Amino acid sequence: MNDARHFFTFAEPPDLMPVECGAGLGPITLAYETWGELSAAQDNVILILHAFSGDSHVASHEQGNSKAREQGWWEFMVGPGKGIDTRKYFVVCSNIIGGCMGSTGPASVNPATDQPYGMDFPVVTVKDMVQAQKLLLEHLGIRKLLAVVGGSMGGMQALQWCASYPDMVTSAVLLATTARHSALSIAFNEIARQAIMADPKWQQGSYYGSDGPELGLAVARMIGHVTYLSDEAMRRKFGRRLQDRCNLSFDFNANFQVESYLHHQGEKFVRRFDANSLLYITKAADYFDFTTVDSETLTSMADAGIRFLVTAFSSDWLYPTYQSKELVRLLKKNSINVSFCEIEADSGHDGFLIPSRRLTDLVAGFLRARSEEKR
Amino acid sequence: MNDARHFFTFAEPPDLMPVECGAGLGPITLAYETWGELSAAQDNVILILHAFSGDSHVASHEQGNSKAREQGWWEFMVGPGKGIDTRKYFVVCSNIIGGCMGSTGPASVNPATDQPYGMDFPVVTVKDMVQAQKLLLEHLGIRKLLAVVGGSMGGMQALQWCASYPDMVTSAVLLATTARHSALSIAFNEIARQAIMADPKWQQGSYYGSDGPELGLAVARMIGHVTYLSDEAMRRKFGRRLQDRCNLSFDFNANFQVESYLHHQGEKFVRRFDANSLLYITKAADYFDFTTVDSETLTSMADAGIRFLVTAFSSDWLYPTYQSKELVRLLKKNSINVSFCEIEADSGHDGFLIPSRRLTDLVAGFLRARSEEKR
Repeated sequence: MNDARHFFTFAEPPDLMPVECGAGLGPITLAYETWGELSAAQDNVILILHAFSGDSHVASHEQGNSKAREQGWWEFMVGPGKGIDTRKYFVVCSNIIGGCMGSTGPASVNPATDQPYGMDFPVVTVKDMVQAQKLLLEHLGIRKLLAVVGGSMGGMQALQWCASYPDMVTSAVLLATTARHSALSIAFNEIARQAIMADPKWQQGSYYGSDGPELGLAVARMIGHVTYLSDEAMRRKFGRRLQDRCNLSFDFNANFQVESYLHHQGEKFVRRFDANSLLYITKAADYFDFTTVDSETLTSMADAGIRFLVTAFSSDWLYPTYQSKELVRLLKKNSINVSFCEIEADSGHDGFLIPSRRLTDLVAGFLRARSEEKR
Repeated sequence: MNDARHFFTFAEPPDLMPVECGAGLGPITLAYETWGELSAAQDNVILILHAFSGDSHVASHEQGNSKAREQGWWEFMVGPGKGIDTRKYFVVCSNIIGGCMGSTGPASVNPATDQPYGMDFPVVTVKDMVQAQKLLLEHLGIRKLLAVVGGSMGGMQALQWCASYPDMVTSAVLLATTARHSALSIAFNEIARQAIMADPKWQQGSYYGSDGPELGLAVARMIGHVTYLSDEAMRRKFGRRLQDRCNLSFDFNANFQVESYLHHQGEKFVRRFDANSLLYITKAADYFDFTTVDSETLTSMADAGIRFLVTAFSSDWLYPTYQSKELVRLLKKNSINVSFCEIEADSGHDGFLIPSRRLTDLVAGFLRARSEEKR
């Protein structure tokens, strides 16, 4: 792995990290990357939390091998002079536990059996993911975060950071996220899981060393992709245009461009993602429910003076604007300082991943204000 | 089949019915049911067109065996004294070709091989379905329809009736339908098809006599169900309520009620529906595009004086209201008489299947006016 990733391993048996389901997990490795320089006062740390299928590679690095220089998933936002300016801030991002991009997940070796965990991996939660991130920051000697920043499931982690470690967090930027999954979001995730588990090559999760449930995983990814786009975005992008032909072919190959697009997304995903990780991560997202945090936690968040920026995207139908507003109301009701913004965009849930001056300025301005307050 | 269905077989080889893809199909059997009495003047015929997974059993019959007396899929709308009053109207509904409820489809025997067609069944279109229905009506001696009535894909068939046989149609009632599938609708259908074709038990469609792709078909049905409901309906119906437990179970069984509901819908569908029929019918819906009809056809529809009632449901996100409005604009621009109504309902695309006084009164009033005009 000759790239920009670093690895931190902890919770070596028998000192397992307790996880919410009651089990213990260890050893745990977190793959992480950093950009910029930690200030002497340690007051410039921004922790980025990635979404469901993301990883630690938020942006390219100026140094390092070709893999390190590759474009990251938030390239337009993170870098020198960008919205999250790596000349000013020390940016950290780690791959979540349960993932498959270098951190410990179901494909990792279970020390109890010396085989990949598969479905013996414990059902981890967003809280567990955040607990592991906290241990990484301790390891890096970081005691305070200027901001936790995340979109989609990354926003859930950012929220959980505020709930679990309010005194460490100065501010939180939540993009296209929700306090909890609606029945609709759970439904889509469950169908994706069923698509994987219906594939006989899934073999109850013990497919490592063989092909794996590639067809089921591709279907699962296609479902995801439809939820990330909006009706408008799909109309603009594909409409009813045909793929490489002038007339309908009267067969079951991809006739329409949108079909080819979905096939392509499915196939691409299969090459980079582990099916069991999809099961575990979607389950963690479904389980997350910030509306059930106790009042003591909310009071701690208010007392710590954490400032929130909550941003919704008008055409996001996975986590529609009303869900962001519900979160804002919950925070405000508990005397927590929150700014809310809805960005008009027809790109759907993917809005936070699409280059936008408006979004960049919003995030940059919010972070600058927090940074100046600290001085 | 000791129920209320009748069967009409035609297009006996070599006199095949030509279908749009260029092939010929025959013999063709249509399963159909009727309610009420044909008037002497033959001016009281209403043809109901069923949606994707529907069948000829629109409503229960007062006579016949227990199967004939079973509730139909539009029981609240069709019957003595109901919105479509079978004391006044002679109602006909047939199962579409490509289907699996008594009409010829991919599970039927291919006379060329004496085996079930499977994927050798031609890719039929909505136009082909309507052509077969026309032949059935000829067989029944019916030359004029007071109304063609359909919801969802039934609405597409109703539209096609007006385009193919304008002089036979007095009026059309289109509910929760669209002139053509958006990229989003095609995407959902394609994912459903992929879920079936990814199941190794699909065997390129030649699974008859063995299990069939039950798991894939169940996933496909779950996808369908999510698109038929709305975010609001799912919140009201399920929210985040847990199924038969007080706490999260930290496993991959159904934790939430919405998950159990989807599993149940999937399993139920597998018992009654043929997977290949799903492939063919969704493809027909994807191919349908009323916006490409030629101006001559539109002129014939205007000249024939067909009256339209187009009804959208406010929370339908499969065929949103804007799509009904686009259809209305297209008809009006071509001097076709159309009334439009949006029903406020949080039940999503399924709105036309949910008992509603408003909908019943709307349909009944429209039909009564057409019936009185005829006198």
